[in-house]
Formats: sequence, structure tokens, C-alpha cells
Amino acid sequence: MTHPAESAEWGAREDRARAWFEALRERVTAAFEALEDAHAGPLAHLAPGRFARTAWERPGGDAGGGVMAILRGRVFEKVGINVSTVFGSFGEEFRRHVPGAEADPRFWASGVSLVAHPCSPRVPAVHMNTRMVVTTRGWFGGGADLTPVYPDDNDTRAFHGALKRACNAHDPGYYPRFKKWCDEYFFLPHRGEPRGVGGIFFDYLDGGDWEADFAFAREVGLAFLEAYPPIVRRHMDEPWSEDERALQLVKRGRYVEFNLLYDRGTQFGLKTGGNPEAILMSLPPEVRWP
Amino acid sequence: MTHPAESAEWGAREDRARAWFEALRERVTAAFEALEDAHAGPLAHLAPGRFARTAWERPGGDAGGGVMAILRGRVFEKVGINVSTVFGSFGEEFRRHVPGAEADPRFWASGVSLVAHPCSPRVPAVHMNTRMVVTTRGWFGGGADLTPVYPDDNDTRAFHGALKRACNAHDPGYYPRFKKWCDEYFFLPHRGEPRGVGGIFFDYLDGGDWEADFAFAREVGLAFLEAYPPIVRRHMDEPWSEDERALQLVKRGRYVEFNLLYDRGTQFGLKTGGNPEAILMSLPPEVRWP
Repeated sequence: MTHPAESAEWGAREDRARAWFEALRERVTAAFEALEDAHAGPLAHLAPGRFARTAWERPGGDAGGGVMAILRGRVFEKVGINVSTVFGSFGEEFRRHVPGAEADPRFWASGVSLVAHPCSPRVPAVHMNTRMVVTTRGWFGGGADLTPVYPDDNDTRAFHGALKRACNAHDPGYYPRFKKWCDEYFFLPHRGEPRGVGGIFFDYLDGGDWEADFAFAREVGLAFLEAYPPIVRRHMDEPWSEDERALQLVKRGRYVEFNLLYDRGTQFGLKTGGNPEAILMSLPPEVRWP
Repeated sequence: MTHPAESAEWGAREDRARAWFEALRERVTAAFEALEDAHAGPLAHLAPGRFARTAWERPGGDAGGGVMAILRGRVFEKVGINVSTVFGSFGEEFRRHVPGAEADPRFWASGVSLVAHPCSPRVPAVHMNTRMVVTTRGWFGGGADLTPVYPDDNDTRAFHGALKRACNAHDPGYYPRFKKWCDEYFFLPHRGEPRGVGGIFFDYLDGGDWEADFAFAREVGLAFLEAYPPIVRRHMDEPWSEDERALQLVKRGRYVEFNLLYDRGTQFGLKTGGNPEAILMSLPPEVRWP
């Protein structure tokens, strides 16, 4: 078989996936800036936030790079969206752990990832990521999960509902499998605590029909876009207390613990020469370990 | 050879080491509380901080435990001192990585560790740890390192000077070796940055004369006690600006990144069923990733 790195068919797939991740970034960006514009609650005296973009390249020449975009606003204390497309050869350690890279370490990977930390402890934090990875094999991965300080059944139901519909449109087995995977993945064993109220998580998705897998990955991004902004609108005008804010800062500490101790994307990025500013953009703007 | 777990000689050594770590905790506690009492600079309107102690036990019955002590004061925003003595059998993963545990996984470990995060960005943060570990072999490890926001040559010289004297009293090769080890260990590869201005770090210290090694481990604790309080006194009355405070909170983020991404003690503790509150007590009280 021709290695995907030398295949016109895979080259075209890579171009389409990358273009989608960038297009999704545009839509997400617009949706978050619209929330900033619409805000009339606490902190509305501040200017509505806007994303500022910074392009970065992987060191060592022709190895790809990305664009990180950060918004600091009045609904969102910090939102980071990173689109990156990187390629090259895995080092010894990664070869053994990445499917299809054992015999030939060449890889290509592109994706979009978002983490939003709201100002208000009443508005849940959120994470969304979709990516395509190509070695001698090709697959999609990603997911979305919600991290409220104060879980709200309506929010949880709406968030899971949108993801479930996206899953069911492709395979009735996806939602139960990917929900469970999310619950298992976003868990802090040292605390015995889940990170939040879950969502879906999937990886190595290669159902044998690339078009179908790509359509599913797109659908996950769209489901996130459908589900999250209404949750923000529902809570962004609520006032909050100092005690609620203090609890939010402690909860954010758990987010940091998860990302630095366990998150595979963070480890992958830092160990493959990714841009630390882009990778650690997910960390909350203000945190407490009292 | 008798396994140390069944040897009266090793039992007596363990008792003495543990008693020393607890005695050092008392002296360190008194020295930090004296700094709190003496303070007349910024925040002096607050009450002087006192350590509050909490005992904890490892889950699963007779497996040891510890006492964590936290001070939240007006010189120190947060100081954590943990003394723990734990024992049992390593799991599969650890056996292969801990010297002397391959054939027999039984272990005993005791130590004292301290991390201090000052209120003032002009006062350096500090870390000190000494420990004794026994498997089929026995050794000491530990060190101390200084993390200023604004490095000051006098402070750096005084801190290193005290540690160097402690080292030289035992072996002229110790200081250069353990200083280099510290520089290499407390380094953030993803940032290309050292954590601070260094100090000493040593592990697996077994020079063939347990009494001499124990005397050295004690000397390191005493050198820390000699060196750090004068550095605090030198800077604790200086006023600071909002910009300096902001930089301190960012610098603390690097501390968190190091501890969660790289620190072996943190990983060891969390993976051997240590108390997460005690292990993560080292994390700074307030942090920013702006």
C-alpha cells in the first residue's frame, strides 16, 4: 500500500479536514464574539471581548504550525482556540504508542481545540476538540465536555442531548460508547472526582469509510456550537457572590491538575515540540489552591 | 542478607530518621512563625500566620500516613510542611523503577518536605525536602532550591553558600554534583526555562556509611534553616507594585507546570496512594495564566 504521505487521495483528505477545522474555528469565533456583544449582565461595563490571533511555526523548518486565538472578555475571562497542522516523523518514544507508526514514523495531524473559561461561576467552562491524524493509518478523534461549578440538570441534558443527536445520526452505538469514554477519560483518580458533567470523547475513529468518519467529526463540532451558546445565555446575566467566585477558582485548579497530570493532548503537544503557549492556552486565567 | 524490613539495625535507623524529620519540622515551623511575628511591612495589619496541622493515614490499613501543616499568613501566603512515613509493597510499575525493589517490593519511606509561597513578589519562594527510603537497599534524597520572581545576587549567593558549606563538610564532590543535578532537575523543557536559581538536589545517596549519610541529610535541613529566613527578612518590608504581583502570579504558574508535569515526588505520591491534599499542598495559593 502507498503510504498516505505519498498518496494523492490522502493529501486531498488532509486538505479538506484542515479546511474544515479552520472553517469551524471561524464559526466558533463568531459565536463567542456574539455572546460577548449580547452581554448585559455583570461586568457589562467592560468592552466586549475579541479574539486576537497569533500564528506560530514548529521549530526545525518545514514541520507545520498553527494559529492560536485568545479572547479575554466580559462573558469569558479567557477562551483559547487553537488550529494546528503538524507533520514529520515521531521520535522513538511516540512510535511505539501511536497506531500505525511502529514501522514508519511519518505522521500528519490537524485539529481544532477550544477551551473556554467564563468570568461567571454560574456559566460552565467547556472544552471541544476534533482532529484528524494520519500515520500508515488515518483516523479522527475528539469530543466535547462541560465543566460547571454548579451543575444544572437542564444544561447537562441539553449538552448531552445535542451530542447524542450528532452521534445517533451516524451510529446508534456511538453515544453510549463515547459518553462512557468521556467519563473515564476526564476523571481525576487522585481526587476520585470527574472533571465535570461529561460529554463525549472518541479516538482512533476509523470505521472503514473516511467520508462517514469525516462527516461525524464535523457534526461533533456543529453539535457543540448548537449546545453551548444557549447554556451561556441562560446563565450569563445571573449575579454571583464572592463565595461562588472562590469556589470557581478552586474548581479551576482541578482543571489544571487534569490537564497537566493526565491529558494526552497536552503531553503529546509538549513532547512533539508543539508551541507551549498554544498548548497551555487551555489553562485558566486565574486559579486558587487555597 | 536479612531484608531491612526484618532487621533491628534498619528498624533503629528508620526510627532515628523519622524522629529527625519530625524534629526538623518543629524547628522550621518555629522559624517561619517567628518571621510572621516579626513582620512590620506590607500586610502587617493582618494577624501573624500559624501552622495548622492535619494528620492523615494512607488508605488500606497499616500503611503509614503523615501530618500536613499549612500556614496562611502575612509574610507567607501559603507554606506547606508535610512529614510522612509510609510503608508497604510497591505495585508492578514502581518495582521496576525503584532501586532494590525488583526482587522484593517491600518499602519504607519517610521524609519532610516544605514549599513556601510568600505574599510579596520580592520574597523568593522556596522548597526543601529530605527523605530516607528503604527497599532491599537504603538511601537518602532531598535538596533545597530557591525560586525568586526577581533574582537577587546576594540572595542566590547566600543560599548556595549555605548549601555548599553543608556539602563540603561531608564530601568536596557533593556540592558541584548536587548543584548540577538541581539545575537539570528543576528545569522546564517545554519553556526552556529553569524553575528558579537552583540549590542542590540529590537522590540514592548511599555512601556505604549510613551514619555519615544521615548526618549529611540533617545538615541539608539545617543549611536551609540557616539560609532562607535571612533572605526573607531582607525583603519582607519592601513595598511592591501591582505589576510585580502580576508577574509573581505568572511565575507561580511555572511552578505548577513543573510540579504537575515533571516532579517525581508528586507522581510518586499520587501513584502510591498518598494523600492528594498533602501532596498538592505545594501548589501556590493564587496563580495566573493570563
